[in-house]
Amino acid sequence: MNAAAVPDAGLGSRGLTEADIDDIAAGAAVLGCGGGGDPYVGALMTRQSLRGGQPVHVVPPAAVPDDALVIVIAGIGAPPVLIEKIANGSESELALRHLEKHLGRRAEYLMSAEVGGLNSLYPLQVAAKVGLPVVDADGMGRAFPKLEMTSFHIFGIPVTPMALVNERGDLVLMQTTSDFQAEHFVKHLAVAMGGIMSSAGFSLSGADVKRAAVPGTLSICHAIGGALRQARERHADPFAALLAALRATTYYRHAHLIFEGKVSDVQREVTGRWSLGQARIDGPGGRVLKLAIQNEHLVARIDGRTAAIVPDLLAVLDEDSAQAITAEQLRYGQRVRVLAASVPPIMRSEAALKVWGPQAFGIDEPFVPIEQLIAPGG
Amino acid sequence: MNAAAVPDAGLGSRGLTEADIDDIAAGAAVLGCGGGGDPYVGALMTRQSLRGGQPVHVVPPAAVPDDALVIVIAGIGAPPVLIEKIANGSESELALRHLEKHLGRRAEYLMSAEVGGLNSLYPLQVAAKVGLPVVDADGMGRAFPKLEMTSFHIFGIPVTPMALVNERGDLVLMQTTSDFQAEHFVKHLAVAMGGIMSSAGFSLSGADVKRAAVPGTLSICHAIGGALRQARERHADPFAALLAALRATTYYRHAHLIFEGKVSDVQREVTGRWSLGQARIDGPGGRVLKLAIQNEHLVARIDGRTAAIVPDLLAVLDEDSAQAITAEQLRYGQRVRVLAASVPPIMRSEAALKVWGPQAFGIDEPFVPIEQLIAPGG
Repeated sequence: MNAAAVPDAGLGSRGLTEADIDDIAAGAAVLGCGGGGDPYVGALMTRQSLRGGQPVHVVPPAAVPDDALVIVIAGIGAPPVLIEKIANGSESELALRHLEKHLGRRAEYLMSAEVGGLNSLYPLQVAAKVGLPVVDADGMGRAFPKLEMTSFHIFGIPVTPMALVNERGDLVLMQTTSDFQAEHFVKHLAVAMGGIMSSAGFSLSGADVKRAAVPGTLSICHAIGGALRQARERHADPFAALLAALRATTYYRHAHLIFEGKVSDVQREVTGRWSLGQARIDGPGGRVLKLAIQNEHLVARIDGRTAAIVPDLLAVLDEDSAQAITAEQLRYGQRVRVLAASVPPIMRSEAALKVWGPQAFGIDEPFVPIEQLIAPGG
Repeated sequence: MNAAAVPDAGLGSRGLTEADIDDIAAGAAVLGCGGGGDPYVGALMTRQSLRGGQPVHVVPPAAVPDDALVIVIAGIGAPPVLIEKIANGSESELALRHLEKHLGRRAEYLMSAEVGGLNSLYPLQVAAKVGLPVVDADGMGRAFPKLEMTSFHIFGIPVTPMALVNERGDLVLMQTTSDFQAEHFVKHLAVAMGGIMSSAGFSLSGADVKRAAVPGTLSICHAIGGALRQARERHADPFAALLAALRATTYYRHAHLIFEGKVSDVQREVTGRWSLGQARIDGPGGRVLKLAIQNEHLVARIDGRTAAIVPDLLAVLDEDSAQAITAEQLRYGQRVRVLAASVPPIMRSEAALKVWGPQAFGIDEPFVPIEQLIAPGG
């Protein structure tokens, strides 16, 4: 991975605008694979923070000094809860301050754990409040439902110490013997803390970021969202614009629309930490796509045959606007297209697939890259 | 309450012996009302710590400077778990060190949250390791199953910040918006952390201790245990010795044997944080005593009539030795006597009964002191 592989979306260090936030949110909804929380809620919160706060600068990993302290800000819990229970807005800052106190050191940069959904915006929101720059990178290149599912974990950087704060202001600081233990604790704490928590964790050095993060992903979100917006403004085909934007990146360049049809069934269950579900989409000619969900879309099977599978991207897009629909917003009757795309090579390594490959979700089949699943001309 | 009301059991500041530990454990089993963890396990752990450690001095609350930092050490969880999963021995010290780090200050004294069962011994065990004195007091004068059930809570001293450590060395530090939230979190964390945790919390000042603790309770445990041991050594009646020891205290002086018989049924369920149960004891002439349990014995009903009720003491004693039997050791066929006794006035105040009276356990009847329930000559 090198940052040069990432198109310069113009984020540079010019300070984010509210329009940038909307573009990032729209792009993050695509990379979020249906999870990571509703980016619309995140955009509202972040725009509000920008208005009252300090300018937010996004910097590439290469610009972060090796010995700088980079702290990762994220919301943790079942995304549907956030729709009904909006954060009070100060949780993430509180979590950051508690972690800093525990470390005995102030953060110099913030970063996202997952560039998908709401969690791409959380660090920006806090940055506007505390006046810190945000690193243009994340730990997933998409969204995933478990704490150990980050490139940081794969490179041996622990998730704890991690501070967790709920909307009441209750604090829990965890320091666990493994990232799996941290996930185990969070699963139970999510229930105790009311379904959604704001977290500060993964205390990385600048050198760690360069070694272990997926670089450039905020810029990519921004570019994707911008392409969608411009297509709408020009009354051009948003799907063509989206595919072009993805194909212009090194990471997501194998991008394909694999299905279109009508959502005919959605089953969803919020079990504390996760939203588990299944969706069925009926296409023309009696073809059926079935989608398995654990916060994010995990696997799409068309007429029983695997068409795209985790960790590759899987997004469900509104047929008119090409906007990504989060898993909790899937509804009977929606007309949609399904997008699949490759993910960065760092996310398809053998070590990475052990952490977030199909088996990690209890799916008993191997990962097959989307470019192999798509027959030429398919 | 004043310390002069407590008989001097000779603990003074002479440094505890292993024999002292055994006496305290035997007394704590009586005051523990069946809960607080098996004091035999605690005695083993504490004697081992004493052997390799530093002398442990027990000091009265009056000897603690008003501005000293007193930290409360306790095991939290369902007592039956401890029988199968013994602590590794360093959890409590780790919890203490983490809390001290969070507070930015070293503890100068340790204290017990509950003088019943294992938790009377936990602070002594840590004291031997870290070389701190232990205050002769606790926050219950018996044992209770919830975090908010302490005299500290009643006097407005919060349980958090609290550090929790399990046998693997995982750490959680909580700082909650109320003691009820802390209990709510601990209930979920107990499951995540493996059933039993060691905790350090309730950062009290010396002035807090004088105002809000139940003084002299370690000395009383020691006196009760000593009386039982001496009776056995002299082949005297241990029940008479026990009643005499209790009646010599201001707190527990209304002490009565309310039933004797054979345990004929025990139902017990460990639900993560608690051990819930019912026991039935069949007495002569077809009389039946039924005991309701939530970690501790809550209420005894003889032939349907309430004979003793929380917060008054209720202990089930072995018919031969008068040793207290913990709730998790109750077995079919055991021949037992049931003891009831008054608790300190501080524990029967209106404010106290709101926290640990019958209603706090879902028992829909008022607290009636044992001295009123016992008819003259009854």
